[in-house]
Amino acid sequence: MDWQTIPFDPASQLPLYRQLSQHITGFIGRGEIAVGDRLPPTRELAGLIGLNRATVSAAYSLLEQQGLIQGHVGRGSFVASQFPAPASGTEAEGNEAGGDKPLDWEGMLPRSEMKPSSPLFPIEISFASSRPSRAAFPLATFRRLAREVIDGPQAADILQLGSPHGYGPLRRYLLEEARRAGLAQPGDDLLVTNGCQQALDLLARVLTGPGATVVVEDPIYHGLWQVFASAGAELAPVMVSPEGIDTDALALAVERHRPRVVVLTPSFQNPTGATLSLAGRQDVVRIARQHQIVLLEIDIYSDLRYFGTPLPRLKELDQSGNVVLLGSYSKVSFPGLRVGWVLGPRPLIARLAEYKQMCDLHSDQLSQAVLLRFAESGELAKHVSRTRAEGARRLEAALEACREYMPEGTRFTRPEGGMSLWVELPATLRAQDLLNQSQEHGVDFLPGKYFSPRQGHAHALRLSFGGLSPEQIQRGIHVIGRVARQQILEEIQTSEPLAALV
Amino acid sequence: MDWQTIPFDPASQLPLYRQLSQHITGFIGRGEIAVGDRLPPTRELAGLIGLNRATVSAAYSLLEQQGLIQGHVGRGSFVASQFPAPASGTEAEGNEAGGDKPLDWEGMLPRSEMKPSSPLFPIEISFASSRPSRAAFPLATFRRLAREVIDGPQAADILQLGSPHGYGPLRRYLLEEARRAGLAQPGDDLLVTNGCQQALDLLARVLTGPGATVVVEDPIYHGLWQVFASAGAELAPVMVSPEGIDTDALALAVERHRPRVVVLTPSFQNPTGATLSLAGRQDVVRIARQHQIVLLEIDIYSDLRYFGTPLPRLKELDQSGNVVLLGSYSKVSFPGLRVGWVLGPRPLIARLAEYKQMCDLHSDQLSQAVLLRFAESGELAKHVSRTRAEGARRLEAALEACREYMPEGTRFTRPEGGMSLWVELPATLRAQDLLNQSQEHGVDFLPGKYFSPRQGHAHALRLSFGGLSPEQIQRGIHVIGRVARQQILEEIQTSEPLAALV
Repeated sequence: MDWQTIPFDPASQLPLYRQLSQHITGFIGRGEIAVGDRLPPTRELAGLIGLNRATVSAAYSLLEQQGLIQGHVGRGSFVASQFPAPASGTEAEGNEAGGDKPLDWEGMLPRSEMKPSSPLFPIEISFASSRPSRAAFPLATFRRLAREVIDGPQAADILQLGSPHGYGPLRRYLLEEARRAGLAQPGDDLLVTNGCQQALDLLARVLTGPGATVVVEDPIYHGLWQVFASAGAELAPVMVSPEGIDTDALALAVERHRPRVVVLTPSFQNPTGATLSLAGRQDVVRIARQHQIVLLEIDIYSDLRYFGTPLPRLKELDQSGNVVLLGSYSKVSFPGLRVGWVLGPRPLIARLAEYKQMCDLHSDQLSQAVLLRFAESGELAKHVSRTRAEGARRLEAALEACREYMPEGTRFTRPEGGMSLWVELPATLRAQDLLNQSQEHGVDFLPGKYFSPRQGHAHALRLSFGGLSPEQIQRGIHVIGRVARQQILEEIQTSEPLAALV
Repeated sequence: MDWQTIPFDPASQLPLYRQLSQHITGFIGRGEIAVGDRLPPTRELAGLIGLNRATVSAAYSLLEQQGLIQGHVGRGSFVASQFPAPASGTEAEGNEAGGDKPLDWEGMLPRSEMKPSSPLFPIEISFASSRPSRAAFPLATFRRLAREVIDGPQAADILQLGSPHGYGPLRRYLLEEARRAGLAQPGDDLLVTNGCQQALDLLARVLTGPGATVVVEDPIYHGLWQVFASAGAELAPVMVSPEGIDTDALALAVERHRPRVVVLTPSFQNPTGATLSLAGRQDVVRIARQHQIVLLEIDIYSDLRYFGTPLPRLKELDQSGNVVLLGSYSKVSFPGLRVGWVLGPRPLIARLAEYKQMCDLHSDQLSQAVLLRFAESGELAKHVSRTRAEGARRLEAALEACREYMPEGTRFTRPEGGMSLWVELPATLRAQDLLNQSQEHGVDFLPGKYFSPRQGHAHALRLSFGGLSPEQIQRGIHVIGRVARQQILEEIQTSEPLAALV
């Protein structure tokens, strides 16, 4: 195969990865690559044809989805044996003879996404999940309010089939709250979703697809970029510093990629904890307005501010209806009850509700009713206020432990709220190696690669402290720091000094 | 406004209501109808332009969704003041000057799918939804069991973030039940979903896509074919008779289209109530095995058999792992609690769980725990047994009323269970016309077109009787029958006899 001669048209409507996958389909169809042949590794092919590796990976993923190639972990990608014979008509497929073969499920299924493997050792302290503390759940209050809902006059309504838009009383309450907070504009409507994650999935499906470009922050929560990649959109990552997204880089990315959608978490971003300044927020809203871009504002952490002054949300700053706000009860109450929402212009919400109906009819109503009771009784506000006090102690413990235990050369963000901080290790250390050994000592976290839409951040990691006590946080970071120092030491000892040059 | 001169093209791909809404959009855009102007009442406009009133209503609903007009109860529909300025095209896009243009949401969003418009009259008896009876909910039992869950030792686990696979205790229970029933094979696993609808969506995304063909029954529940169409799959509809899918036609469709997936509801299919015989089931499983096809078996009604002998499920007959079973608690207990499941080979379930995590992390755990309690306490079985006794009376009432009240020439299925029957009207009657007038008399149902992946079934309708009392069923079908007879009479009276040919 002479890969270098494949023609690409960067100006085409068809994204490069699709052009590449079509070329490869042609090679396979014409027998230029045979059944069972191994395709070049993505890195190698990227080099040969002068595209970036993510593009080649996307093409391979597509071919795999189409059943034309199969990936085998550690061995590479191969032209699938199931490749449908080019309808020659001579051979009768699907006759009795072929009938006893069991279905090749692995060959048929799309390739598994990168996901963290389960720890091999018992974990005592896990920084791996951005979730609230189980010990802090106000169980007695939950029980009392849930009983009120169950015994209340609405029980039969709750149990009957509901509306794709959400449980009526909750939806009205959330809209009213959003109006009171200056978030909802007159033409806005609201859709209840199964947490923020479903809102992202619905928005990805309604607003994007092959041919659309989506600007995402980098590093970014993996469930966010995956959802847009899965919808077929091209990702344009823009760097997040501890001060939030770099708005100059954003402006450049917008000029260059003409994205349809920009997704931002302006307050206590996951994984960095970064928060965008007021000026930055104003810039972002202006850029969106000027370029007719939809701005998806993920606002699930902003109530968890432990220090400093609250900032207005993008949705409050937006005068032209470009901003869509994604909210959720998961980070401030009970993530096991799946309730989030999207607030945005009515035509968008109407279309999202149709997709919602197609996806799962509507969100669970029992939890919607219980969380409504939790919110309107004032107990949610009390719980959030307690969580803030505890969160301040957790955050301080995490920052102090990083200062005290992490080796010299480590950099980490200093957020004023949220649940996570981002740690960049000295360049000689790889987060995956650090993780392997930390797990042996009962401590878990997520390495940076899960937060990179372009397979970077090998030297970084996320520490999510929201579910841990200050004491656990200290102890856990102590372990990570000890392992890190030890790995640095081993690295120095095993490096062979170079012979003198003469 | 001279409404009478609006041109309509009945042969267009674009439905009449969309043609009308586009004309009205044009009038508004060109200022021929001013901001704040009142549109003619639907009945009046229907008369002026010679379309039926439902069509005009649908056009108004669409315009309202688009934010172009606003309806005020009792006062009519008015052109909205929020109307976005028309894109002139001369203006530079994305520069400072163009920056104040509000976002063109409608232009950006995918076209709205066909969906039933809301009835214009108060509905007393609705055959429109395939759902259980609210009056039959065992509220006291639900309350008792839900309190046990809330007060139980698992409460904090339920409130914390859970697993994409489902709430552990429920998942284990369902798998154990499936093994006991001979449904689960040794290599099978189970994923909890938000009802059967989400299972369909996940399966459509994992197993199909552009280039894949999916055989669906025709007529078929619209939420089913939409989900596969939305995933980009080609649909190959195969006729369902009252005896279930025509297996000869299925074999032909398989030869011709080489589908990757066949979706069947072998027992009490929605909308026909049709049930496939044992021989038919064996044929279907054999065809799937021979042609290496995945068979999705929707099994959400089979427990609602009121008469006759239960039949084995496809999953029980399948020896080669081609059948994936979709189950749900929605039809046999409380649809407002969104819990269904997929049972199938482990590699498939693993991949579905990854997509589930991407879609909404996991299903709501409170409802999973409550329904588990309902099932394992034996109360679900008792409730199903009561539902069967009541269902028999409902079904008999529906069949008797159809025999007694529907005009001569009407044909209808005679299911032995489930929630729906399918009525084919005499050829002079259109279900949409019948619906319009039935709604005026407080009776609602879904016309056949919503169950057709190829825009057929204009003379058929679905009667879902699951949520109604025998008395309501009788009274409702009495109304539909009376309206139908009257429409036949009017049809005869308005047909001008032809002049004699000389």
